[in-house]
Amino acid sequence: MKVGVLGFGHVAAATVESFMANQDLMASKTATSIELVRVATRTPARAQGRVPPACVVSDDCWALVDDPQIDVVLELMGDVPLGRALVLRALSNGKHIVTANKALLALHGEEIMRLADQTGRHVLFEGAVAVSIPIIKTLRESAAANRISSIVGILNGTSNYILSQMSEHGVDFASALADAQDKGFAEANPALDVNGGDAAHKLTLLAALAFGVPINLTAVEVQGIDGMDPLDMSFARRLGHEIKLIAQARLASNRLLVRVQPTLVPRHSMLAQVRGAMNGIVLQGDLMGSAFLYGSGAGGRQTSSAVLADLLELANRPMSGARTGPHNMGFWPRSAAAPAVDIGADYVCAYYIRVRLDDQAGALAKVSQVLADADVSVDALLQDAAKQDLSDLIIMTHPISGSQLRAVWPALQAAAGPDHCALVYPVLGDCGC
Amino acid sequence: MKVGVLGFGHVAAATVESFMANQDLMASKTATSIELVRVATRTPARAQGRVPPACVVSDDCWALVDDPQIDVVLELMGDVPLGRALVLRALSNGKHIVTANKALLALHGEEIMRLADQTGRHVLFEGAVAVSIPIIKTLRESAAANRISSIVGILNGTSNYILSQMSEHGVDFASALADAQDKGFAEANPALDVNGGDAAHKLTLLAALAFGVPINLTAVEVQGIDGMDPLDMSFARRLGHEIKLIAQARLASNRLLVRVQPTLVPRHSMLAQVRGAMNGIVLQGDLMGSAFLYGSGAGGRQTSSAVLADLLELANRPMSGARTGPHNMGFWPRSAAAPAVDIGADYVCAYYIRVRLDDQAGALAKVSQVLADADVSVDALLQDAAKQDLSDLIIMTHPISGSQLRAVWPALQAAAGPDHCALVYPVLGDCGC
Repeated sequence: MKVGVLGFGHVAAATVESFMANQDLMASKTATSIELVRVATRTPARAQGRVPPACVVSDDCWALVDDPQIDVVLELMGDVPLGRALVLRALSNGKHIVTANKALLALHGEEIMRLADQTGRHVLFEGAVAVSIPIIKTLRESAAANRISSIVGILNGTSNYILSQMSEHGVDFASALADAQDKGFAEANPALDVNGGDAAHKLTLLAALAFGVPINLTAVEVQGIDGMDPLDMSFARRLGHEIKLIAQARLASNRLLVRVQPTLVPRHSMLAQVRGAMNGIVLQGDLMGSAFLYGSGAGGRQTSSAVLADLLELANRPMSGARTGPHNMGFWPRSAAAPAVDIGADYVCAYYIRVRLDDQAGALAKVSQVLADADVSVDALLQDAAKQDLSDLIIMTHPISGSQLRAVWPALQAAAGPDHCALVYPVLGDCGC
Repeated sequence: MKVGVLGFGHVAAATVESFMANQDLMASKTATSIELVRVATRTPARAQGRVPPACVVSDDCWALVDDPQIDVVLELMGDVPLGRALVLRALSNGKHIVTANKALLALHGEEIMRLADQTGRHVLFEGAVAVSIPIIKTLRESAAANRISSIVGILNGTSNYILSQMSEHGVDFASALADAQDKGFAEANPALDVNGGDAAHKLTLLAALAFGVPINLTAVEVQGIDGMDPLDMSFARRLGHEIKLIAQARLASNRLLVRVQPTLVPRHSMLAQVRGAMNGIVLQGDLMGSAFLYGSGAGGRQTSSAVLADLLELANRPMSGARTGPHNMGFWPRSAAAPAVDIGADYVCAYYIRVRLDDQAGALAKVSQVLADADVSVDALLQDAAKQDLSDLIIMTHPISGSQLRAVWPALQAAAGPDHCALVYPVLGDCGC
């Protein structure tokens, strides 16, 4: 099996290095020999002396995807428009694809998978989501006989590192972000980490694999962690919770909610134990019950583990003729029993609400009345000593519907008064782990 | 793909029920139709009305494995000698095997896999270990490019339930076992749960998959939880640890330690969070780093999830001709780079030691001298107020070698005096999660 590598950045270089280091081991896992025959990168000098002896390095990506000897293209450039064009061309040329490019698949996955269906080729992407966690294979294969009810995960290590620093050390968002950048956790574009975009890319792939819905990034409701206040972490802790950037795809009444949002999770849940730059995912299925998978979400070497596993997977499938094995996205036909995706779904859950009130008699009574009028019952209440005549009131509600929340929200904002903060985060109830 | 089911006990009945309930979903995951055509059980009446309409039920296991229309045999009887004979016959007849029978594979796996190699057939067994955790597929496929350094797990739910009850409620071993039996957690033979035998069956399969060593149950050092004292749980907690029945396969200096033993784990580690009848496994590889997988370890429905995933795996492989895909045990050839298995290996770790001393001046000095003479340094020390002139001395050592422990042990027993207890458990240091 002859392999060409597109790119020689961090992940591609680590993948080639891991391949060379563990080639003997990989040879004991398949009857097919795997050869890296070609690398194409804008900076061929970087690859000098870091590829197998017989591997040709050039700066011509198009020649690589057109090279008739190549069976499999590893797309590890990260670029979206160029990646799309090269992957489509490689598929047209009958090559199988392995990629770790979640943005590419989140944005152009439908087009790519459609062409892969026409040409009967594999597109494997274990390295695109939570690299040290085999979540793609678990959804596509291990949990394949289950009706999945929910996937709830921490899918972005950078934002989890930032939230962990804020929660554990009380530092503010800007300092925690700067620290993450110092430590090299932030991706090339840190905006995608903190605005929830990267987690949304990954979630849209997981939702498609678990529920058979199309890959559709626009169906994900996204709220990032930019500008979060460590004060809320501290209040959440006093109420027995941690705040995490939770990505969830959840089926209720045959409608699917797909959402990335800062969310309170019970402090003793497995998800609350996911600290620093790690990832964790809770999966619930009708047969398996709940499972929790935890590991690194990023890193060149960690990603190489997933990419090389995909290569071994291909080596253990016939290279010529049409694809054998499960559909690239699990379901086939994909649209058959897919639930409707419900944007702004009426998801019933508890909410954490913080309202900054003037420290005046009657302020609490006013808020209480607002809640009572909307039939929102309160699970826990915290009020801090006033500072500069302002006082934070924290309300943890019992589970309410989205429409109840929307009904009560303007009145709460009004109670907070001009320039005073009112914010709300959902609270994850039973996530099974 | 035509499937025959051997057995109609708890797991087999649940598997057939799950298959019938989720047949439409499974049909969307493969281009191959899967039919249950035959069930063989000693009690055919039990299967009445609980199998698909066209499925034939009889009490003739031999006729099933000899039936030429059958492609795949699901061995779900649990019996070892009969299971062995039927599986070997089915393989000789060119059938693929799916089984959840860990005892069968732990005892006769080498013979079965050898025959499967000769006939080019698949033997899949995801349901044999930690059913809701895809650990077999993870080791065989997802982590296949990694040099694994350790697998550390809680693989027996019953014993974990018992230990959790003892730790959380301070009840003694006998009451916790009775409670587990009441709740239906104990297996047919509870001895295998509490004496570590069941965990050893599972560990020997995981070690073979991870390290390429033969399946060899006799190479596993086993110590169960029978007769453990809740006192030690309480001391362990005061030292920041929980005691768990830990199954580990660990590579050091190209020698492999394979061991099932009550072990202290740090209270904030993921393994310590595995409570009740759950399973959890930490895997460490040179590329992926550490990952932790958590889920149900038993239950008919949960096992059916793994068994049906194996069926889908087969449906997505060519049914005729020789096996395609990874070797049943991951490695091929299996013996090539396998490390030596080191029974009584000189594993360097910290130890928890409890010595019951006469409450006399000089007793502590005597023990301290014994440790100092053997160059064993102490990390933490606890001594309880004496009861009836006896006092428990708890020593947590710094990491020492097995030979240091063996050197010091007779002197510690002697210090404890006649009829006084001296016991020791290893302490898991860095398990990566």
